[in-house]
Amino acid sequence: MAERLVATRPVVTLSDAGERRRYDHLVAEEPMEVRVNGDPVSVTMRTPGHDFDLALGFCLSEGIVPAPEAVATIRYCAGGAGPASAGDYNVVDVTLRSPDPVAPALRRAVYTTSSCGVCGTASIDAVRRDVPDVRGDAVRVSAATLAALPDRLRAAQRLFERTGGLHAAGVFTADGELVCAREDVGRHNAVDKVIGWGARAGRLPLRGHVLMVSGRVAFEITQKALVAGIPVVAAVSAPSSLAVSLAEEAGMTLIGFLRGASMNVYAGAERILR
Amino acid sequence: MAERLVATRPVVTLSDAGERRRYDHLVAEEPMEVRVNGDPVSVTMRTPGHDFDLALGFCLSEGIVPAPEAVATIRYCAGGAGPASAGDYNVVDVTLRSPDPVAPALRRAVYTTSSCGVCGTASIDAVRRDVPDVRGDAVRVSAATLAALPDRLRAAQRLFERTGGLHAAGVFTADGELVCAREDVGRHNAVDKVIGWGARAGRLPLRGHVLMVSGRVAFEITQKALVAGIPVVAAVSAPSSLAVSLAEEAGMTLIGFLRGASMNVYAGAERILR
Repeated sequence: MAERLVATRPVVTLSDAGERRRYDHLVAEEPMEVRVNGDPVSVTMRTPGHDFDLALGFCLSEGIVPAPEAVATIRYCAGGAGPASAGDYNVVDVTLRSPDPVAPALRRAVYTTSSCGVCGTASIDAVRRDVPDVRGDAVRVSAATLAALPDRLRAAQRLFERTGGLHAAGVFTADGELVCAREDVGRHNAVDKVIGWGARAGRLPLRGHVLMVSGRVAFEITQKALVAGIPVVAAVSAPSSLAVSLAEEAGMTLIGFLRGASMNVYAGAERILR
Repeated sequence: MAERLVATRPVVTLSDAGERRRYDHLVAEEPMEVRVNGDPVSVTMRTPGHDFDLALGFCLSEGIVPAPEAVATIRYCAGGAGPASAGDYNVVDVTLRSPDPVAPALRRAVYTTSSCGVCGTASIDAVRRDVPDVRGDAVRVSAATLAALPDRLRAAQRLFERTGGLHAAGVFTADGELVCAREDVGRHNAVDKVIGWGARAGRLPLRGHVLMVSGRVAFEITQKALVAGIPVVAAVSAPSSLAVSLAEEAGMTLIGFLRGASMNVYAGAERILR
């Protein structure tokens, strides 16, 4: 399926040097539907590849599936009529060991509140799921190790060089060794793919590890990292206020604007060795 | 509510120059629930501000509300008990002229397919809603005008300078005059806010206009622009393959990598005057 990751398109480039017609590599984007015990739980636009990681990571980080052990099988939908086509790889069926429908959990994932839950409550409580904190994780990471992560993540991005259109997420050890990197048009998808990899490899919780993301850090990224038990999150760009609030509350170390030897530490600075 | 747009947080900055403790401005991020005729249809993480634009733009571009004229009122939820708090501004009630529940449309928005719809079908058909094409829009835009848009959009971003954490979307005339600019932590939200502004101002469809976005262009951005009738979409970064496919199919002009005087035209180059 490698050929589905990049699409080649004609493009007209205009510049001071005039007009040039050529072919450009674009990152592929296709819809993927995830079903759990037959119930469709999401349609996401994603970059094809590592689809089972994405499906499982999404289900775990959205609270639809309680734990990796609950999953019996993950496979592409076999329901397509006629000869196999690319579309057959756009539905992933997750089957749980329990045959119960997931509708209640699904509703929890899609609508965090039912009646008037957001209204009048502290905002962070309204969207925060019951995720473990990482306060007890005693890992330490040196500033020099952190400073090296953006380049290492970029080096692992196979598609970005060709398309310029991808977010990346990578899990590193506290020594800066890359354990898993994933790319996607969607920043949340890239993180879900990494978490799904960890779940499928039996590596959750990822205690003592660092999650590095290529862009900004909003609330949901920090929440996903907590679901995976990751104590340190670093990003090239800015965090949101709610991401910092959640990091503080959960005892997570949160680093933004990690560029060259410079970084901003928004929470959990005690884990960083100068 | 201006004070809710930016949060101030302590930060430790590490660099070759050592360690510095200071305060940083972070973009605010809070959940907002949208209800249509009392039914919750979405909880999105957004930057507070222009919430009614966001609510209406979301409902229109996701196909939950068929047209601006269908809306009777948009207001913050008045159901919160006790004294008013920030949380009271995190639920927006959209009331339609018709009292019908929106459940069927909602299901369409959340799950584009029901049984095995994605499987075996062309991917673009599976997620594409019935949006108008812009083939008949004869507007022409000069390359020089387009080249000036990124700086104009940036100049209109009030928060970015302080927080570095925001996406922006702006609507411009074909002469490059800014008509509306909106910012958000979420790139889709910024576009929804612009579309919702247009709807509330009675300006839809935005024929002859240009939508400029600060980041990448994925499928959903082009689809939202089509819902608003915008014939030209320009972005600072890369488009996805599916965004280009939809632009071609709908007769939209799609420009990526708009940087300085250079730009890549992926579809509809005939609208650009050299």
